[in-house]
Amino acid sequence: MAQQERAVKTRRTIIEAAAALFGEFGYNGTSTTDILERCGVTRGALYFHFPNKLSIADAVVALQDEALGPPEREVKVQAMIALSYQYAWGLMYDPMLRGVVRLAVEQATYKKPDDLSYRGPKKAVLELLRQAERRGELLPGLELEAVAQFFVGSFTGVQVLSEASTGRQDLPERVTEMWRIILPGLVTPGILTRLRIPDLPGGTRPDGRLSA
Amino acid sequence: MAQQERAVKTRRTIIEAAAALFGEFGYNGTSTTDILERCGVTRGALYFHFPNKLSIADAVVALQDEALGPPEREVKVQAMIALSYQYAWGLMYDPMLRGVVRLAVEQATYKKPDDLSYRGPKKAVLELLRQAERRGELLPGLELEAVAQFFVGSFTGVQVLSEASTGRQDLPERVTEMWRIILPGLVTPGILTRLRIPDLPGGTRPDGRLSA
Repeated sequence: MAQQERAVKTRRTIIEAAAALFGEFGYNGTSTTDILERCGVTRGALYFHFPNKLSIADAVVALQDEALGPPEREVKVQAMIALSYQYAWGLMYDPMLRGVVRLAVEQATYKKPDDLSYRGPKKAVLELLRQAERRGELLPGLELEAVAQFFVGSFTGVQVLSEASTGRQDLPERVTEMWRIILPGLVTPGILTRLRIPDLPGGTRPDGRLSA
Repeated sequence: MAQQERAVKTRRTIIEAAAALFGEFGYNGTSTTDILERCGVTRGALYFHFPNKLSIADAVVALQDEALGPPEREVKVQAMIALSYQYAWGLMYDPMLRGVVRLAVEQATYKKPDDLSYRGPKKAVLELLRQAERRGELLPGLELEAVAQFFVGSFTGVQVLSEASTGRQDLPERVTEMWRIILPGLVTPGILTRLRIPDLPGGTRPDGRLSA
């Protein structure tokens, strides 16, 4: 393996181990020593890639982009729906995504107020909303930026409550309820009758992880 | 002051100081010593009322009920709307309510998954939804339990994002956007035209606190 390839692999190993630990124990509950022990990398190698724990957490948050590729659907609101279940699935079964989201929600323990963790999801949703608008799927007069922001906020809270109540076991049902309530304020009546909820992911790996 | 009255007052002093500290530093970032220093109560008095920090946190969560008395409105969905702005106002200006909500959202750092912190809000919303349904304000076929659950989740996430982005300074605008999107899936068209958003609290104290 070339040196550069090995470095990329080591960096990824560190990030994955850190994400899983942040998911389990939170930012304050995880030390760099815990991360080293989990991934079997030397302290020197870790500090070669990351100056401190905060920079590892930032790299973990960036992992989120992998879960934000929307499934292909002709109706773009349907693609948003499919993406929401794909993300929910990741929260249930992918330790890395759980880590990302725990860092985001417990932001205040990790760094000063900053909406970095929510920018990726907001951008992905906004892009789908713009496509949906061009195709005439949406009700007129919506401010798409504000809708994207609301949607990401709403989903965030729904998964927080699902985690608190059932360890996220009822998350797909709660996502379905969310869509039932918000779709009439979002799409034209003609599109509403064509949408399918739930739209669960079919192509996930046997272990439920969405990313390679 | 009678002995019992003094005990009630001391207990309240401890809870208020703890709530403000939890809001500022989180559960893990606050020690019982910090609480003692903030409220000027002796360690003996504190342990007379609370065996440990966890029991203080539980008492802080119970404070939330004070922020959940809905303003009187003839249209019950309007009362829900008014309650949401009253609660948003509390999150912006009442250090105690900020403490309650930080404990709820960072639940995983404070105790095992448990939806205790969300039961009060859910109950308050469900009661208003039931009244609204009896008055024929709601669309037919809604499952009110699920709607109440979604609403509390959605509001929770909206305020998390508002906190991350602007330290909650844009929370009223975000609550308005939430109502614009969810009302068409909730109320009859006839009621929709009668509703007023925003419905900001008028009777708050000069320091913005909602409770005495």
